[in-house]
Amino acid sequence: MVHEDLRLKERFGFVRQCTEAICSPLAPEDHVVQPVVDVSPPKWHLGHTTWFFETFILIPEMKGYRAFDKNYNFLFNSYYETVGARVVRTDRGNITRPTVKEVLDYRKYVNEHMNHFLDSQEELSKSLSDLMELGIQHEQQHQELLCYDIKYILGNNPIFPVYLNKTLQEFNEPARPEFQHVDGGVYEIGYNGDGFCFDNELGIHKVYLHDYAIMDRLVTNGEYLEFILAKGYEDFRHWLSDGWEWVKNNSIKAPAYWYSLDGHWYEYSLNGGLKPLDLNAPVTHVSLYEADAYAKWKGLRLPTEFEWEVACSRHLGVNDNSNFMESENFQPMPQKGNNNQMYGDVWEWTNSAYLPYPFYKAPEGAVGEYNGKFMINQMVLRGGSCATPKDHIRATYRNFFHPHLRWMFSGIRLAKNQ
Amino acid sequence: MVHEDLRLKERFGFVRQCTEAICSPLAPEDHVVQPVVDVSPPKWHLGHTTWFFETFILIPEMKGYRAFDKNYNFLFNSYYETVGARVVRTDRGNITRPTVKEVLDYRKYVNEHMNHFLDSQEELSKSLSDLMELGIQHEQQHQELLCYDIKYILGNNPIFPVYLNKTLQEFNEPARPEFQHVDGGVYEIGYNGDGFCFDNELGIHKVYLHDYAIMDRLVTNGEYLEFILAKGYEDFRHWLSDGWEWVKNNSIKAPAYWYSLDGHWYEYSLNGGLKPLDLNAPVTHVSLYEADAYAKWKGLRLPTEFEWEVACSRHLGVNDNSNFMESENFQPMPQKGNNNQMYGDVWEWTNSAYLPYPFYKAPEGAVGEYNGKFMINQMVLRGGSCATPKDHIRATYRNFFHPHLRWMFSGIRLAKNQ
Amino acid sequence: MVHEDLRLKERFGFVRQCTEAICSPLAPEDHVVQPVVDVSPPKWHLGHTTWFFETFILIPEMKGYRAFDKNYNFLFNSYYETVGARVVRTDRGNITRPTVKEVLDYRKYVNEHMNHFLDSQEELSKSLSDLMELGIQHEQQHQELLCYDIKYILGNNPIFPVYLNKTLQEFNEPARPEFQHVDGGVYEIGYNGDGFCFDNELGIHKVYLHDYAIMDRLVTNGEYLEFILAKGYEDFRHWLSDGWEWVKNNSIKAPAYWYSLDGHWYEYSLNGGLKPLDLNAPVTHVSLYEADAYAKWKGLRLPTEFEWEVACSRHLGVNDNSNFMESENFQPMPQKGNNNQMYGDVWEWTNSAYLPYPFYKAPEGAVGEYNGKFMINQMVLRGGSCATPKDHIRATYRNFFHPHLRWMFSGIRLAKNQ
Amino acid sequence: MVHEDLRLKERFGFVRQCTEAICSPLAPEDHVVQPVVDVSPPKWHLGHTTWFFETFILIPEMKGYRAFDKNYNFLFNSYYETVGARVVRTDRGNITRPTVKEVLDYRKYVNEHMNHFLDSQEELSKSLSDLMELGIQHEQQHQELLCYDIKYILGNNPIFPVYLNKTLQEFNEPARPEFQHVDGGVYEIGYNGDGFCFDNELGIHKVYLHDYAIMDRLVTNGEYLEFILAKGYEDFRHWLSDGWEWVKNNSIKAPAYWYSLDGHWYEYSLNGGLKPLDLNAPVTHVSLYEADAYAKWKGLRLPTEFEWEVACSRHLGVNDNSNFMESENFQPMPQKGNNNQMYGDVWEWTNSAYLPYPFYKAPEGAVGEYNGKFMINQMVLRGGSCATPKDHIRATYRNFFHPHLRWMFSGIRLAKNQ
Ligand SMILES: [Fe+3]
Ligand SMILES: [Fe+3]
Ligand SMILES: [Fe+3]
Ligand SMILES: [Fe+3]
Repeated sequence: MVHEDLRLKERFGFVRQCTEAICSPLAPEDHVVQPVVDVSPPKWHLGHTTWFFETFILIPEMKGYRAFDKNYNFLFNSYYETVGARVVRTDRGNITRPTVKEVLDYRKYVNEHMNHFLDSQEELSKSLSDLMELGIQHEQQHQELLCYDIKYILGNNPIFPVYLNKTLQEFNEPARPEFQHVDGGVYEIGYNGDGFCFDNELGIHKVYLHDYAIMDRLVTNGEYLEFILAKGYEDFRHWLSDGWEWVKNNSIKAPAYWYSLDGHWYEYSLNGGLKPLDLNAPVTHVSLYEADAYAKWKGLRLPTEFEWEVACSRHLGVNDNSNFMESENFQPMPQKGNNNQMYGDVWEWTNSAYLPYPFYKAPEGAVGEYNGKFMINQMVLRGGSCATPKDHIRATYRNFFHPHLRWMFSGIRLAKNQ
Repeated sequence: MVHEDLRLKERFGFVRQCTEAICSPLAPEDHVVQPVVDVSPPKWHLGHTTWFFETFILIPEMKGYRAFDKNYNFLFNSYYETVGARVVRTDRGNITRPTVKEVLDYRKYVNEHMNHFLDSQEELSKSLSDLMELGIQHEQQHQELLCYDIKYILGNNPIFPVYLNKTLQEFNEPARPEFQHVDGGVYEIGYNGDGFCFDNELGIHKVYLHDYAIMDRLVTNGEYLEFILAKGYEDFRHWLSDGWEWVKNNSIKAPAYWYSLDGHWYEYSLNGGLKPLDLNAPVTHVSLYEADAYAKWKGLRLPTEFEWEVACSRHLGVNDNSNFMESENFQPMPQKGNNNQMYGDVWEWTNSAYLPYPFYKAPEGAVGEYNGKFMINQMVLRGGSCATPKDHIRATYRNFFHPHLRWMFSGIRLAKNQ
Repeated sequence: MVHEDLRLKERFGFVRQCTEAICSPLAPEDHVVQPVVDVSPPKWHLGHTTWFFETFILIPEMKGYRAFDKNYNFLFNSYYETVGARVVRTDRGNITRPTVKEVLDYRKYVNEHMNHFLDSQEELSKSLSDLMELGIQHEQQHQELLCYDIKYILGNNPIFPVYLNKTLQEFNEPARPEFQHVDGGVYEIGYNGDGFCFDNELGIHKVYLHDYAIMDRLVTNGEYLEFILAKGYEDFRHWLSDGWEWVKNNSIKAPAYWYSLDGHWYEYSLNGGLKPLDLNAPVTHVSLYEADAYAKWKGLRLPTEFEWEVACSRHLGVNDNSNFMESENFQPMPQKGNNNQMYGDVWEWTNSAYLPYPFYKAPEGAVGEYNGKFMINQMVLRGGSCATPKDHIRATYRNFFHPHLRWMFSGIRLAKNQ
Repeated sequence: MVHEDLRLKERFGFVRQCTEAICSPLAPEDHVVQPVVDVSPPKWHLGHTTWFFETFILIPEMKGYRAFDKNYNFLFNSYYETVGARVVRTDRGNITRPTVKEVLDYRKYVNEHMNHFLDSQEELSKSLSDLMELGIQHEQQHQELLCYDIKYILGNNPIFPVYLNKTLQEFNEPARPEFQHVDGGVYEIGYNGDGFCFDNELGIHKVYLHDYAIMDRLVTNGEYLEFILAKGYEDFRHWLSDGWEWVKNNSIKAPAYWYSLDGHWYEYSLNGGLKPLDLNAPVTHVSLYEADAYAKWKGLRLPTEFEWEVACSRHLGVNDNSNFMESENFQPMPQKGNNNQMYGDVWEWTNSAYLPYPFYKAPEGAVGEYNGKFMINQMVLRGGSCATPKDHIRATYRNFFHPHLRWMFSGIRLAKNQ
């Protein structure tokens, strides 16, 4: 194998192992349930990421490969409509078999065959190494989703089980936020490097931005609490119309995982379980509606995804100490020094709808279904979170969620016109 | 301890053990899910039956007893509204913790304390031995529900896991059914013995029955299949109005767990998994709507619960070879010799609504919430099933379900006027 | 025409006219809407009752008859599945055409043809006069439904339009209720006369009743208000389980059409609109759940339909001054003298499920679909109401509604064991 | 009054009259219903547009003015949360009173007082004439909605009532579409004139566009039919993910109001009722999902709102013969000569999400709730339709609807990169 392929094989091994490490604190019981439609059972993530390598690499490419179990294509497919009938998404949480043990056996079987297969290749073709890369990136995406889903499953259990207990560094209250000025003009947007990126980042194109300014750190729990205390959740004037309906229909009164007990605020964290709210940490688990209402209440606004990208790549830069999955904090952390928090901690809501770039072109074939079909009804988030693998993020990375969702590590950075 | 108390302690031990034996073929994953609102997670049954003894006996009666975990009252309570807030029923399937292992520890802890407590009593007071008896009967009811729920969880899994594999006796086609004549007149209805019965059987009272006749065995799969082949599911004239809506809204085409593959009928059984439909076995997993439509199509009718009780206690008698949980078939079996199948095999739908007997009086206190509050919108079934413990059934036993339900072992016996 | 046929023709004319009189205070706008699934647009009642005569008499029997409009079979059919596709029930309220004027033209057209047809017959065959009678009774049933539906439409309008303004007689507080004793024994139940009755009343059969006693008047608003003031709606112990769910899910706090304004209770009445609650009048617009909870709170119970029928036909008798539709009060009235209120005022909930009598046999053909198919999930009410035509009620008449419904004039009479 | 105010008064009179003219072919019954949540009863539009003038002008500005009926604020308010409690939107269709007659009286009363008030003013203040203008524009918007809602009410009636019967001009098949090239560069977007515009058009700002080309006419029914015949509705690959769910959940097979009878396609039109589909007319009543799927199937795309605006204002220009409400066709018409159909006929879906312009600022006060709160989850349409008043449209006008909606006159113009 050539050096690049060796490195790919190594990364494959590392990422595959990492997924299992994320699940290792779980009991078999925790792997099975799907409490709401957006949360998938951890077991499903374990199987689905494996199914990707089996379906797109081993079955078409490895001579003599026998599928581990022919039912698994049916069980672990997701939205790839070109690859046969799929388990209806809302039924995932009723499928108790195969057991976690059997799924881990499936992983082992596929890993071993992948290793044999890679070893048997003198050099990977471009299309194969691209598929490998996509499979690795895909599994990283599911690692992040695993963190969200595990938090949902444990954090909505009335006995608040603890996922891990790592002592966290202590921080002082961050300084008042400054606004970084950015000059208006025509900017180039999109991915322009040699590495991997998703189809939705491609097609360098020009965007005109007017002068603006953007916060040099994230909004904190303490700052967001002021909005709650000012009865922000009770005044429709701050809210988008659909957001106000959402607040009323779901009796929303605070970010997800916040609990008010005897006049004190607590939050559920993967790290440490239920504990007093850290006022210095970035606010997270807010919907776009909450991010937008908070911004309106402050007389400010959310940045567009273009403003965010330009600020990130040209001005604010990226701090090496960003809080990613590898930091193993599993929660956003208070600002450390002059870290602008553009990367890691929380995905930052932008006020841009998730739509195709001007030169967007969907890839061909089944894996091509990937991104384009979701380009409606969702909003873009940027910058990665404390559950994002460090080498998975870029300034041009476009994440997207429906505006009412907040089980992911989402947060707020404000902007304003100049 | 006096002899009767010793016997109660022995039965307690046996029943507690039996519940765990029912769950022993399950993986931890199978214990957690609640695929539909009527199906509870097996783990919940394990905890809830234990909670009964802890809440109604150990906590109020045993000096110095410390609850195993104060959260468990919240988690394992069911509909006893007088004993604190309960887990909303539709949420049971999202509660992955405590784990199965922890719930089994809970069972062990309560069992040991119960044994200590019982040993410490010279003689049980009447109210205490009544509570013991109720706890045992309650756990037997949940054993039966466990069988239904396990069948639902495994039988709706696309890979059809096998619960147990016990070789079953072979049978010939049963003889044509005869109708046993019963003379009209005033009959006494209700429980009149010294043993245990539920509150809903109490109050011996008179009922006038007109001459009628009742089938001497259950309707078989083969007989029911004729109704399907005659397009019985497509002709509204056989159906109650609500039944016809149910058929159309749910695309019902056959009893639950029947699958038509390549022109052959299969059924999922706890015993053996997916296998060819046994035409000689009693039809089961039919709703009242299906039982009633089948009867109308045959020009006959379902018996009332009073006709059933009189036929059972005065005429058809009970065969010792009835197919109960102890037979470990876990499915209804074809008629054996002249066994009239009044007991065991399947609960038999009657056309009686579940309503209070004339002298019904709800017991006082929390356990008194038991039966009376369900006396609306449900229909009575009689006779026990292949999932009923042998000593749990009586001629006067009134089971009840909503008319559209069929995940329990329900079946059909026909009657007619004379 | 023979005398009996003449009388039938006369009744036909009277009943047809009466339906239109009920609608005469309405604006065209009021005829169109279906605010909830159980409430049909008045226009639909006008058309549907006409459709009955056209479909079952004019089209099959009158030579050369041309249907008024072939679309009307589709539009005005109800649940008669044998007579072609029907308008899905929940869509009735969107059908603004034909207009009220056109439907009244339809009525006129059918009336005239019916009169011609009747005049052309020397003597009506038994089957024809039976159909005429059924059509008349059917229209009377819809007259009563019209009153319920009109009350729902106007009484849920925020400006509370007045249907009619008739000065009502004033009454004193009724005397404390007495309980009429009835001896136990075998009684005959069912219709045994020469006149009309519905299929569900047929088949005289024996029922054994134990000694009981039944109230000699209806429960009043004042008496029911005590239940509210005693926080009866907040204590689950009085309620059937399904009833308690219904109370909580619908935030039920009082009978329908009761409004609490500034500490005073008001009720909406067809007669007079919104006005102070009359404490002496019988309580109405209660569900079975409320009737049952009230009875339990009083330590009493509802009668069975058999107890009611025996009390009515053997003991309490019927007062000529009963408050029927012809009284034009359009609301239940306080007890007048020693009127036991068995007839008129409100339909009285019984604790009997609506099930077939032992010798019940559904009539053949389309009109035969009538009653039998509804014999599930409903409870029996007896005695007619202030919206029932006087000649439409009998001691044996079985009305039936789902237990949660209360837009009809339903009310409460209590019973007890002796 | 000064000249400008006179002209405002004249336009007020004309627009008010026009709303009533739109309703004049309706029966009172047609004014009442709300068949789906997005369709408001015509009566409500009549009242709501009147309420605007009463609430924002007469009550605050006219001395001694007495509200016509204090309940009307409650009944005819819409989403203006600052002006008191509103009728829940899904309940509008149950409110039969006030009658149409009474609402027309309300209109007359308010019109007369408006005229008196205007006559009494020497000169209107800026804020008053702005409010007048806004009220007029608001009423024009509701005129357009009235056309959609009337079409929905009549076009979903199984007897397909005819709204009007105007003979339409005949047309030949339009020429093959050409694509107009537009050079890339920085363009200015937004309203820059002296006349009226909505808040969402304000704030001239720069946008960078890459070279593109845009169709010189609308997509026709005939062209869209090819997509249907190519089984475009059955192939998920053309569809956005949410669109594919929408197609399957709603069994969508063609644009709204299309009916396939005996192998021929018909459409329901306000003009002429049910009639053969005109292959030359622009396709309408398509959702964004359909427009986008059609474009993808053609290998093309929808324009952005910016591309549309630039093409409209700089290149394609506007044809005087555009098909607006004043043309009284009440349906889109085939291309006439070289009319590019940018204005009128149908609102053209763009692939731009409805979001604030960079300098957007919501107006103060109640009327300020107007546009900003809807800036989420909706897509922009441009150009006006056959139900738009001629003087109501501009090149900068931004209309917006949720992507699944299609009861409005929506249509398709394609674009492509160059
Ligand atoms: Fe995936
Ligand atoms: Fe229980
Ligand atoms: Fe009817
Ligand atoms: Fe409006």
